[in-house]
Amino acid sequence: MIIFGVDPGTQTMGFGIIEYSRNEVSYIKSGTINLKNIPEQSQKISVIYKELSDLIKIYKPDEFAIETAFYGKNIQSAMKLGYVRGVAVLAAVHSGIPAKEYSPREIKKAITGKGSAAKEQVQYMILHLLKIKKKFKNMDESDALAIAVCHAFKLKTLAHKSSSWKDFILANPGRIIE
Amino acid sequence: MIIFGVDPGTQTMGFGIIEYSRNEVSYIKSGTINLKNIPEQSQKISVIYKELSDLIKIYKPDEFAIETAFYGKNIQSAMKLGYVRGVAVLAAVHSGIPAKEYSPREIKKAITGKGSAAKEQVQYMILHLLKIKKKFKNMDESDALAIAVCHAFKLKTLAHKSSSWKDFILANPGRIIE
Repeated sequence: MIIFGVDPGTQTMGFGIIEYSRNEVSYIKSGTINLKNIPEQSQKISVIYKELSDLIKIYKPDEFAIETAFYGKNIQSAMKLGYVRGVAVLAAVHSGIPAKEYSPREIKKAITGKGSAAKEQVQYMILHLLKIKKKFKNMDESDALAIAVCHAFKLKTLAHKSSSWKDFILANPGRIIE
Repeated sequence: MIIFGVDPGTQTMGFGIIEYSRNEVSYIKSGTINLKNIPEQSQKISVIYKELSDLIKIYKPDEFAIETAFYGKNIQSAMKLGYVRGVAVLAAVHSGIPAKEYSPREIKKAITGKGSAAKEQVQYMILHLLKIKKKFKNMDESDALAIAVCHAFKLKTLAHKSSSWKDFILANPGRIIE
């Protein structure tokens, strides 16, 4: 299964593409979409939609995951981040891929085991888990990979939970009420 | 010229289409897109994009205008409104229509002459300006028309300004430096 992770931003948008197979995650591709030099908001969202749609066409992900939250206190900044996030999710929806959202806390917890982990800890774990040698120039790229890995780990947990139920039923046939 | 106005909302999205010709505005169509019964955010933005794109295809507007601001204090609500606004603007951009944004204050000022006017005053003026007999069921519809009319009035001002310049030059040929 290919998972496409997006770390949304109004200046830089990070993306990370991983494969999740047999309970293992592996690196496929990551990068950033630079939005700094695009002054018009409407042009920005047009670029984001186009770039993400193109990447989705090339890498054909099965699932899409994006970060939800906003750290600041500025209402206008939150709205602007909403802009780019809405358009990113639309690119996934229009490509027929289910989009899932995760909070920074959920992502940190899934990757490091601690919801309050530092950004650097998350990046360290991502490099380790995906066996990446080079350090990323900026956090947006590793953050996007972290979102994709978080989604893989959530799927893993779900699969384990259902297999536990199966095991439980197999082990306890008398407990089934028909 | 056909102007398409949008009053964005996460529960109801208002739209208003007017014609602006020879310094006069006239009503073409208005309505709302109901989003209340769509639980998934990703489905919501998909519906907004589709509905607006369809309306744009039918009414072929030349220009698109949308309200910018957010009144509340809740960061999450601001982000969610950003979602739907971003997607609405994208529908315009993808149809090749320039999108312009206006703050509630600018809209109120353009319609009533007062930036602090009450919503009801704006609605009253819109009904009067567009010669609409029936009262709208909700504000979203007349607000969207107000945004479209605001845009028409801004174009009018721009045109007047340039014609004043033209008049000035015609009246003052000696002031032109060649």
